[in-house]
Amino acid sequence: MSDLPRKVHIKEEGPREGFQIEKGPIATQRKIELIDALSETGLAHIQAVSFVNGKRVPGMADAEAVVAGIRMKPGVHYEALWLNEKGLERAIAAGRLHLEGNISMCASEKFLQVNYNRSFESNIAYAHQVLQSCLARGIPVRRGQISAAFGCNYQGDVPAATVLDLVERIREIGAAHGVAVDELLLADSMAWAVPAQIKRTVGAIRERHPDLRIALHLHDTRGMGIANAYAGLEMGVDSFDASVAGLGGCPFARHRGAAGNVCTEDLVFMCHEMGIETGIDLDRLIECAVLAEDIVGHPLPGSVKSGGSLAGLRQGAS
Amino acid sequence: MSDLPRKVHIKEEGPREGFQIEKGPIATQRKIELIDALSETGLAHIQAVSFVNGKRVPGMADAEAVVAGIRMKPGVHYEALWLNEKGLERAIAAGRLHLEGNISMCASEKFLQVNYNRSFESNIAYAHQVLQSCLARGIPVRRGQISAAFGCNYQGDVPAATVLDLVERIREIGAAHGVAVDELLLADSMAWAVPAQIKRTVGAIRERHPDLRIALHLHDTRGMGIANAYAGLEMGVDSFDASVAGLGGCPFARHRGAAGNVCTEDLVFMCHEMGIETGIDLDRLIECAVLAEDIVGHPLPGSVKSGGSLAGLRQGAS
Repeated sequence: MSDLPRKVHIKEEGPREGFQIEKGPIATQRKIELIDALSETGLAHIQAVSFVNGKRVPGMADAEAVVAGIRMKPGVHYEALWLNEKGLERAIAAGRLHLEGNISMCASEKFLQVNYNRSFESNIAYAHQVLQSCLARGIPVRRGQISAAFGCNYQGDVPAATVLDLVERIREIGAAHGVAVDELLLADSMAWAVPAQIKRTVGAIRERHPDLRIALHLHDTRGMGIANAYAGLEMGVDSFDASVAGLGGCPFARHRGAAGNVCTEDLVFMCHEMGIETGIDLDRLIECAVLAEDIVGHPLPGSVKSGGSLAGLRQGAS
Repeated sequence: MSDLPRKVHIKEEGPREGFQIEKGPIATQRKIELIDALSETGLAHIQAVSFVNGKRVPGMADAEAVVAGIRMKPGVHYEALWLNEKGLERAIAAGRLHLEGNISMCASEKFLQVNYNRSFESNIAYAHQVLQSCLARGIPVRRGQISAAFGCNYQGDVPAATVLDLVERIREIGAAHGVAVDELLLADSMAWAVPAQIKRTVGAIRERHPDLRIALHLHDTRGMGIANAYAGLEMGVDSFDASVAGLGGCPFARHRGAAGNVCTEDLVFMCHEMGIETGIDLDRLIECAVLAEDIVGHPLPGSVKSGGSLAGLRQGAS
């Protein structure tokens, strides 16, 4: 089965994923430098920062300053992550940001317990509360998201049926507040997915919810990121999170679990070579990847930034 | 279209691909140590060395000593690469090796010119000569191989039609010597392939030559290795070259073109997670990947060696 989209939308999450995990202190100005450079590539969505506890996540302590310093490019949506009411208030106060809420579920009850001390049912209640809070502030919500959608280190495999049930719950929660959920983000939070599974789970959802636009958030811990993205493309998925240079983890840290999102320029390279538009200038994006490596001061996992695109080779050839 | 095989065959090329490219002198004993460890994983085919000019490729100057030192594991085929008559004679003299010839074409005439100073027609003549020489020595030949099958840095894109023509020529050359070619290796020598192209080219060959077993040799320079392997699996390809830990190149060398084969343990991980047998013990293979990194003394690109398999997590979960 192949149903490649003609155009895909990529949300760049490198600055947020990367700078929150990097150990070395990185100057605010250099974070802004990367975001500004990414703004010139054609990317329409850039997740710039997260509003989290700066004591726990020192790399995000300067989130407000980063947002304030961005050279706003018209047409680019600068986004942010927040995990609670306080974070949301900071995001609103920062201004300049494109804010959207979502209805967030987790396919692993054990993960919910361990990380958030919430049961499945209390998480449902919490989702109602978050939704209400967004709507009360005039922040639009149209997207659901399911973390651990393909497997969980605590709970093990996640069957497609579990994910399907959660999609129903997400739509019910939305409906209870007059929100029509028409987008769904599936996150392979702990890098359990393989391509055949992406096809099974996405296929099951598309069959039951053909009106739902599906997006994928893929981690590359086990090297499956690009192959999983390809499987998604073949199922008609046209929306991906990605991270320039693979920012967000270091595969050479040796400690398990450390790995970034699928690499933006590798994903863009694959799309372009298969005739799928992204609206992104690959050569400029590669320059951003090289810049990202310079900023963090160590090698990052993306391949195309060192392997090179084929444009120059094609010109030189024949 | 999906036609996943039930079992795939993997030829391990890490020792040959890796030790020929590594700069630092590596002790013969350590090369043997890796080959011996790989022999205990269930791998049935290990390309141990190449018999090439030791002055040009110092890492292979000890090829005979490596072969002599292997602790031969019953059931494992130890193989070698050679590029000319002299190399073949050395391979025969070394003994212990499983030798097979092949009929080798290149999809790029410019690549042939630049690297071998041969025209397309003189390359055909050379293939006849190599085949004759193998048969005269009692070395079996059943496989054709096409390098630059998906694109070439000198010549640019390679259409499936070019590859199809070469398959015809290979079979004609074989037939002229009474050899029935029933295997075909397609090599993405310069890492131009993307998954959709793998499907197009493999599909075109399978349609015209349904009796031909197709194998893929995929380089990972642009991060497409595993995705290309998946596309091959979906087309029913059940034979792959691969390189433990991604030995054979360093993606952080920054100079373009340096990259290893698709990583064996990442490929095995993907296959097992999709229910495809390989006959290989993934945990032992991961130990070999860690050993390979220790031997070369720098990080190697494979992911699963640091991300870990899921077996332990599954056991701990639920």
